[in-house]
Amino acid sequence: MLGLLRVLVCHPSSVAFAPMEHPIRPDDNTGNSPELAPIRVAMADAALDAVAIVPGANFKKLFKRDFHLMERPLLVLIPLVGEAVAIVPNLELASFAEINFQGLVFDWRDEDGYRRAFADAASAMPQLASARFGIEAQRMRVFEYMALQASFANAKFVDAHADISTIRLHKTIDEVELLRRAIAISERALAATLDEVAIGQSEKQIEGMLVKQLFAHGAQGLSFQPIVAAGDNSAQPHASARADYFIKRGDALLFDFGANWEGYNADITRTFFVGEASDYDREFYQTVLAANQRGRQVCRCETSAGDGDDAVQQVLETSRFAEFVRHKTGHGLGLEVHEAPQIMRGNSQRLASGMVFTIEPGLYREGECGVRIEDVVLATDEGNECLTTFPRDLRVVGG
Amino acid sequence: MLGLLRVLVCHPSSVAFAPMEHPIRPDDNTGNSPELAPIRVAMADAALDAVAIVPGANFKKLFKRDFHLMERPLLVLIPLVGEAVAIVPNLELASFAEINFQGLVFDWRDEDGYRRAFADAASAMPQLASARFGIEAQRMRVFEYMALQASFANAKFVDAHADISTIRLHKTIDEVELLRRAIAISERALAATLDEVAIGQSEKQIEGMLVKQLFAHGAQGLSFQPIVAAGDNSAQPHASARADYFIKRGDALLFDFGANWEGYNADITRTFFVGEASDYDREFYQTVLAANQRGRQVCRCETSAGDGDDAVQQVLETSRFAEFVRHKTGHGLGLEVHEAPQIMRGNSQRLASGMVFTIEPGLYREGECGVRIEDVVLATDEGNECLTTFPRDLRVVGG
Repeated sequence: MLGLLRVLVCHPSSVAFAPMEHPIRPDDNTGNSPELAPIRVAMADAALDAVAIVPGANFKKLFKRDFHLMERPLLVLIPLVGEAVAIVPNLELASFAEINFQGLVFDWRDEDGYRRAFADAASAMPQLASARFGIEAQRMRVFEYMALQASFANAKFVDAHADISTIRLHKTIDEVELLRRAIAISERALAATLDEVAIGQSEKQIEGMLVKQLFAHGAQGLSFQPIVAAGDNSAQPHASARADYFIKRGDALLFDFGANWEGYNADITRTFFVGEASDYDREFYQTVLAANQRGRQVCRCETSAGDGDDAVQQVLETSRFAEFVRHKTGHGLGLEVHEAPQIMRGNSQRLASGMVFTIEPGLYREGECGVRIEDVVLATDEGNECLTTFPRDLRVVGG
Repeated sequence: MLGLLRVLVCHPSSVAFAPMEHPIRPDDNTGNSPELAPIRVAMADAALDAVAIVPGANFKKLFKRDFHLMERPLLVLIPLVGEAVAIVPNLELASFAEINFQGLVFDWRDEDGYRRAFADAASAMPQLASARFGIEAQRMRVFEYMALQASFANAKFVDAHADISTIRLHKTIDEVELLRRAIAISERALAATLDEVAIGQSEKQIEGMLVKQLFAHGAQGLSFQPIVAAGDNSAQPHASARADYFIKRGDALLFDFGANWEGYNADITRTFFVGEASDYDREFYQTVLAANQRGRQVCRCETSAGDGDDAVQQVLETSRFAEFVRHKTGHGLGLEVHEAPQIMRGNSQRLASGMVFTIEPGLYREGECGVRIEDVVLATDEGNECLTTFPRDLRVVGG
């Protein structure tokens, strides 16, 4: 794969590499781009004068396309009022042009370094000299931050990661469609994988079968490295598939995985039993299923996320398996696998139309058996809709 | 997938969640862990009193296993002299125990936050109060940096990303074996994909076939989103596969991709022609191949990286296709897809035994046709060895 591109030597007509007037001015430089309205609401709510956005989920949400988080800084600086400014590596200019950015663009070349572009950006935004600047502190890296600090020497930088990320809280109809597609791919891949599961296969082997089926069914990527865990490993909430464990009769077999489609992540967990399931394991499973059902019922518009978690946990904690509870109910899902809203105790945030989150209660008998059943739920004006539809009834496989 | 784990409620015997004495002391706390020797050499060379390492390539190189770069900070602080200290999320303690870390461990729980662990770490390292602290500024995120700054208020933090990363410059025999396996998977997947290529398929469809074959042949992940580009798209060095372009007779068809094996990245490019190749395109291809051959000859122990690039570029620039040069010759490869040494003009670094890098000259006739041929080369005491072996002779496919 290509790394640093050489400076243009002999092809000055190339769009991507042509010398540009600095800064590049858009036709409309009023600063009133409609696509920036949501982030400006978030800024006003958090009392920020400006935000800096780096490639990632928030960037993609704002501009409908993403860039890699490269060794070359690419940032968009958005003031509460006035024109936005972008700092873009010269060799990314052609791609950047596709996002129809309404603001000034300062590009920089490898041989010059990026400091000058940061300084020029600061000069173009004198109103931000002592601004309260919100940054995505869990995403932005230190070298970008150091360059910002050097150019806005009197600004106050604050970690506004959560505030900025509120722009992704309510999914649009289009985003829900992309999630549906990611989920459909995931569920079909799981069905195809189960057809091939057999006693004696290793967890790693089954993981490989699942990944192959995910791509065969159209996945563009994986939401995360799948968890395929059997027997005692299923009782490890964050298990990795083992090459030296071979599934055997009576094992639980847990799959936690998802396909990525256009940046949106599916996330589904189902637990099966290999060959047979003991009466004790069946009761164990039904307890988790009851908690999952309760979550899908309760976690709807107007319920608080904390109340949703409490309702789910109550099912588990009043069962004979209370001692095997390990974790909260779920998390938001979209361009990131973990985002708001967290379905957890004490979170007073009310679920509202367009929020998408997981319901994933589990029980874990360490060294023996774990069961988790995870669905993806969309809050709607009418209450909610479960986007995952893979059957949840206890199923014996591979026998 | 699970997000925040609930605090332990009712299972105090669990290893991962048991309350621990703080800090956790290893048996050997002399600070003379042999695995830290390489990083201490790098620190001495860069006049650093300490470094902070976050999960990623350098972490994996030092400790032989990696962690995700999570929303929960996990760092290792290594002083030039004395005992190292780790800050670890409580729920990762069991995994962290596997790296056999020789130093103090301060763990923290979600309900307490991580600030206290940072403060405790600073208290345990009073000699670093005003230290010159090297950080991986292209990897560490701002929230981790802010926490470090708050705890080591008088320390001077410097971007030591390149200095720290020198620990990965010379690959061990074991690392080369992992790269060989990643490359073998990649080459077999390419061969299988070519068997299925046919006129009329879309770039996206062929990309899907390639990804499926990569996983079918054992890939654990992808080095990066593969580039599958035909016709005019092959002339875009950073092309993305299009769903609405269908390969046709006479097109160039370029694959730039790699499998990941145990964290190590393959990276190979081959360009084919669909159905037929014109005489002009054949000459174009042979020019790139000659540059590639020159690179594989010249880039060996003792040659400087800059001289290697110059030799390759000379082949291109003295050809009739000189105006179609776009980029330098190559980059280092290992746990990262782009790392040192950069095979580029002006880099005086001498290639030395154990360095692994790509040789990937290309020519790009914009709007028409691009050709790139990329191999992975290991510098050895004897000179070099090309790790990629996929045939390079001009090949017509899909006809």
